[in-house]
Amino acid sequence: MNGRISDHVDGQRLWRDLMELAQFGATELGGVNRLALSKEEIDARAALVRWGRECRLEASVDPAANLFLRLEGREPGLPPLLLGSHIDTQPTGGKFDGAYGVVGGLAALRAIAASGRRPRRSIEVVAWMNEEGSRFAPGMMGSAAFTGMRRFEDIVGVRDKSGRSVREALDSVLEKESDLPRRPLGFPVAGYVEAHIEQGPLLEAEGRTIGVVTGIGGKRTFRVEVQGEPAHAGTSARRERRDALVSAVAIVDALQTAMWDEADTVRFTIGMFTVTPNAPSVVPARVVFSVDLRHNSDDIVRSLGDKVAVVCQATRGKCDVTVTELLYDPPLEFPTSIRAQVRDAAARLGYSHHELPSPAGHDSRYLHYRCPTGMIFIPCKGGISHSEAESITQSDAEAGTRVLAEVAFELAEQA
Amino acid sequence: MNGRISDHVDGQRLWRDLMELAQFGATELGGVNRLALSKEEIDARAALVRWGRECRLEASVDPAANLFLRLEGREPGLPPLLLGSHIDTQPTGGKFDGAYGVVGGLAALRAIAASGRRPRRSIEVVAWMNEEGSRFAPGMMGSAAFTGMRRFEDIVGVRDKSGRSVREALDSVLEKESDLPRRPLGFPVAGYVEAHIEQGPLLEAEGRTIGVVTGIGGKRTFRVEVQGEPAHAGTSARRERRDALVSAVAIVDALQTAMWDEADTVRFTIGMFTVTPNAPSVVPARVVFSVDLRHNSDDIVRSLGDKVAVVCQATRGKCDVTVTELLYDPPLEFPTSIRAQVRDAAARLGYSHHELPSPAGHDSRYLHYRCPTGMIFIPCKGGISHSEAESITQSDAEAGTRVLAEVAFELAEQA
Repeated sequence: MNGRISDHVDGQRLWRDLMELAQFGATELGGVNRLALSKEEIDARAALVRWGRECRLEASVDPAANLFLRLEGREPGLPPLLLGSHIDTQPTGGKFDGAYGVVGGLAALRAIAASGRRPRRSIEVVAWMNEEGSRFAPGMMGSAAFTGMRRFEDIVGVRDKSGRSVREALDSVLEKESDLPRRPLGFPVAGYVEAHIEQGPLLEAEGRTIGVVTGIGGKRTFRVEVQGEPAHAGTSARRERRDALVSAVAIVDALQTAMWDEADTVRFTIGMFTVTPNAPSVVPARVVFSVDLRHNSDDIVRSLGDKVAVVCQATRGKCDVTVTELLYDPPLEFPTSIRAQVRDAAARLGYSHHELPSPAGHDSRYLHYRCPTGMIFIPCKGGISHSEAESITQSDAEAGTRVLAEVAFELAEQA
Repeated sequence: MNGRISDHVDGQRLWRDLMELAQFGATELGGVNRLALSKEEIDARAALVRWGRECRLEASVDPAANLFLRLEGREPGLPPLLLGSHIDTQPTGGKFDGAYGVVGGLAALRAIAASGRRPRRSIEVVAWMNEEGSRFAPGMMGSAAFTGMRRFEDIVGVRDKSGRSVREALDSVLEKESDLPRRPLGFPVAGYVEAHIEQGPLLEAEGRTIGVVTGIGGKRTFRVEVQGEPAHAGTSARRERRDALVSAVAIVDALQTAMWDEADTVRFTIGMFTVTPNAPSVVPARVVFSVDLRHNSDDIVRSLGDKVAVVCQATRGKCDVTVTELLYDPPLEFPTSIRAQVRDAAARLGYSHHELPSPAGHDSRYLHYRCPTGMIFIPCKGGISHSEAESITQSDAEAGTRVLAEVAFELAEQA
């Protein structure tokens, strides 16, 4: 016994890796633009494989381009424990959303290796394919395919704005990584722990270092398509127009009113809003926009979500409107056993902690349906994420990784 | 004398040329997507040059890629008369907006040549560069540069969405056309006549064939930029957000109210509306949208235009807003002499006609400041243009071209 596993976490190295990974797709404003299966992500994956090899972790990949780095356990035949997250980002994303869980997992495996102790089960770091859903919607594709929550055949047909399919993008990634052993999609796993930045303001506001994540909030997403008719901006009279932007603005306004809550607990966002033909002197013919609705209460997610199509139809004016539900994820609670292990490890290491649900979705949602799953949060500045301004401290990053290393070793020792 | 010039207009050939030109950039829905200086437009220009050569019109080009096809007059040293329009289109444009004036001009020159008569002045068909302003904003670039209304140096720096500059696009067009003689920018001209589809419903509604265009309505255009802050759709509270879409929707709503008129004579359009980063789970950081405002009364264009920035600032909510005026074109009236010639030619040929102003802008606006200028309208179905559904009849097309040929020959005979 060389003391606690967490004593071997190298905070400097962890931070250096985070900064180095952020170079792949680095933006001028200090953020990261590393879309799923992009050139930038392929380069970042190669760096992970290289770092893994430096500490004798075997890299492998599955048909969904989920990437694994394996620390072999004493009983290699047992299903492994997974630690991880994703390394794709939003177009104007930050350095830590996702990347922290993967680089932190790698740091935890390094610590275990450095301790000289070998866990019973193998432990693997995983970088799931396309969590963000920004290039190929919706996200959490790799974990959805791995856990069987979505059919692989359905996923590969999804296309990005340029018309390129997931299938084509996967082919080019897997060809680049053809030297890596190929794993089956959805091999048996013993558990999953995901470290992540909070993406909310609570830990920072309360001065706590570790978030013990109780579960994930509910979410419904929709695609709204408003169809009007193009016309000349200079000649067509207002009464004759079927202006898709005019209708879409009225719909958005009405949706905002319908979703408004005094307590400000509902998360309602229209993040994507695309106008066609989008030319200054043409009356818009079509608007397509996204609706993202989240709440910790399933009742609220259901009832508000049911209003979306009703409000759209009531306020569409002279245009036609089509509402398609893309996703309904009810709220979920992680097992109390893993939550207790996270809490105990934090307490043992002297870190202040706080129990809180995650309003954001994570790959852990889908893993939860397959194996005992938990999450560890660390604070992020101002609760800001999905932004180039995303920021965490090195000491919080190290604290979260120490807790992760402790919990991982314990879980990998369990029968 | 072989009868009237207009007797030699070949309506079949005119229609065939219109249909053939529409193949360059043809869309599935029967429209045309032929952006300024695109590959499609370069191919279409080559067809015009070829058709010109078939009837011995000499093609030439100026530094702004305005394309000329010249019928030599008896006194070739005199400034020529110009007939024309443009052949670029909106992304979902039709077959006739612009193309009609160019192909009609060519048909008029063919008719003059076929008549065996030679006008005193040379007559040139011109296809102005980038009238639509859809790829490079604002439009009417070629005619603005030709007439000195905009400095050529200012125009060439404008870039399209992909970052390509007008300078680069011009270079590649002019290189393709390096076999054509090069004209100076803004050579002396004796007059300009532009035939065009009405792009409004009046002629069709009143059953008239020829529109005698009295002038062009006033226009102001603006670029509105709403700057917020990106945030995570799942975690950031409404009160903490600076959602650029929320502010933009409030602004658009308030603008619509401010610009509303019972009589429906104000033309107010937001045709371009672009969200950044435009990802479903990111709170919008930025919205840029266009404002296009037109009216025949200068007082109204001025007073409503002055409201734009005021309304934007008053309703911007938690975001910042910047309003930039791109263009102010006051209403103008064409000389009564040319209007009388158009009216008389229509009457002589037995076509019903109607005097009306053009609410849409045309290259003739800028030519008006340089030389006696006039326009001839023909009806278009339902007043629809800037749309793949744009439609005219062959007989109206022929009628407008007959009037154009008569007026052109008369003007070219004048001292």
